[in-house]
Amino acid sequence: MTKHKNRSVQILSMGSYLPKKKVFADELDKKLGKKSGWVFDYSGVHTRYYVDDETAAQMGATACKRALENAERSIEDIECIICASGSMQQIIPCTASLILEELKCNTNPACFDINSTCLSFATGLDIAASLLDNGRYSNCLLVSSEVASKNLNWDAPKGAILFGDGAVCALLNRASANENSFVGTSLFHTYPEGAHFAEIKVGSNLPAREYCEDRKADFLFKMDGPAVYLGVLEHIHDFLKEFEQLAERSIKSYSAVIPHQGSGLGLQRMQKRLKISDQRFINIIHDYGNMIAASIPLALHLMIESGRIQRGDHVLLLGGGAGLGMGIVELCY
Amino acid sequence: MTKHKNRSVQILSMGSYLPKKKVFADELDKKLGKKSGWVFDYSGVHTRYYVDDETAAQMGATACKRALENAERSIEDIECIICASGSMQQIIPCTASLILEELKCNTNPACFDINSTCLSFATGLDIAASLLDNGRYSNCLLVSSEVASKNLNWDAPKGAILFGDGAVCALLNRASANENSFVGTSLFHTYPEGAHFAEIKVGSNLPAREYCEDRKADFLFKMDGPAVYLGVLEHIHDFLKEFEQLAERSIKSYSAVIPHQGSGLGLQRMQKRLKISDQRFINIIHDYGNMIAASIPLALHLMIESGRIQRGDHVLLLGGGAGLGMGIVELCY
Repeated sequence: MTKHKNRSVQILSMGSYLPKKKVFADELDKKLGKKSGWVFDYSGVHTRYYVDDETAAQMGATACKRALENAERSIEDIECIICASGSMQQIIPCTASLILEELKCNTNPACFDINSTCLSFATGLDIAASLLDNGRYSNCLLVSSEVASKNLNWDAPKGAILFGDGAVCALLNRASANENSFVGTSLFHTYPEGAHFAEIKVGSNLPAREYCEDRKADFLFKMDGPAVYLGVLEHIHDFLKEFEQLAERSIKSYSAVIPHQGSGLGLQRMQKRLKISDQRFINIIHDYGNMIAASIPLALHLMIESGRIQRGDHVLLLGGGAGLGMGIVELCY
Repeated sequence: MTKHKNRSVQILSMGSYLPKKKVFADELDKKLGKKSGWVFDYSGVHTRYYVDDETAAQMGATACKRALENAERSIEDIECIICASGSMQQIIPCTASLILEELKCNTNPACFDINSTCLSFATGLDIAASLLDNGRYSNCLLVSSEVASKNLNWDAPKGAILFGDGAVCALLNRASANENSFVGTSLFHTYPEGAHFAEIKVGSNLPAREYCEDRKADFLFKMDGPAVYLGVLEHIHDFLKEFEQLAERSIKSYSAVIPHQGSGLGLQRMQKRLKISDQRFINIIHDYGNMIAASIPLALHLMIESGRIQRGDHVLLLGGGAGLGMGIVELCY
């Protein structure tokens, strides 16, 4: 990759929605017939949220409304809705259209989905940055709304216990000349040897109409957790070195590194490897679990709300996902 | 929407793949127990292709290889693979990753999917144009690979008979200063009153594991064809008027209008309404059917191959899709 310019884009505001139903590690211990503490020990997740009657579109629309309220903007001002999620509400139409339907407005923004599984928000931010900086749109809602809980395989509990549901939206605006905010160096790579480390096989290769109980596991989420972790480990050094060369600075020099919240153990090991302090390495998995693409923006939103990330701070969004994909986006908030 | 600049992007080459299995209208007449001619009369589709043992990723990879060969480029030169399709091979990972796996190369481009159903290629071209013009990438493969045939509902044959499978790839490059090629004015709107006119409900709202024969139709493609057509009809005038104001020229002034190949009847009516000659209004549905997002790029590819579209020609890609979405992209080839 060659160097590219910073893109003048600002996150005006964020909003999020967590499902009403809170699920604690000890409830899952009981459900799974494990001894107390098993779920927490394996996942690092104390609390996660599962949808009850909420849909991805409803959660996404609520997150959008909250982001709009926080910026005192109206949905009628918005030119584009990008849904950047690893799970879709329906195969057709795109989830962004269904979010627009829930927003019940009188305008007709462009709607489309972007999917790179857990990296979708980071990919979406990178894409939106070029669309806005390039003058194609002046603003957009970038929303990750994830319902992981509906496709988990409880017969393979070490994968299932990691995940939670929820939605997060960022309202993006082309930054004006007197604002420092930008989306900077971004780098994404896909390592196809890991294409099958994490899967939901349902799709044109495995239509839902072929469902049968004997093959139930094929229709649910399947992950080889150690393979994903080892895959990331194999590439992380070269990946970050390439990023540092492009960005012309060390990852240690950023105010915060917001990693994808894959698993408690994965986060601990990653932090140790990157040698980044607790203050700068953002870890929220204890309270929310792995929310697929919504994890990174939720962590960003919480850090902004708590004041740990302030205007002008330089932060990194860093993730690995199915594919096997790795991505990093530099953000000056 | 406000006016945006032309983006210096060139389609270097294209490539396509059609499945081995050709399916003729009279075969479907027999399969459905209809009198000879029924399928053709309702669909305007004489021939369509259905996958046999091919996957979306294999078809997409072949289309990519052919595009690369046509430009005498190597996959190792490519920075990004964007799969822009309405059907995905699997829910996880993204189809672009699976295409990369099939391409068996030693490099690691960024991979992600874009989905706005039938508009995905047009949306993808619009997005890729900003990524390339903005300097984020210098090239990309934009590929639509569609397997429609696996999720059709043969108990609702008027929808099912329209569709065909196949893949098309465009190799895009940032245009150099001495090239005229660009992606120009683009306009997309979503009209949420049509969010449920065309659906496959499978997703987080309807997990595959809930499949049962009694509710079979809910797990398959469902379309209210007249509602889609009337929805498009209601908005097309204002939509094109807005486009013409932004582009500062009439749609009649373009060398070619390449519409989404929705249905034979829909195309006829659209052409009549737009008052565009046979020479300029591209209609290939007779030989391929509705290939979801792959229809528009296939028509573009065929027109380039036959010499009907030449370097410097100004063409329009125009489509309607589920959502209800409408989109138009101005391309100087």
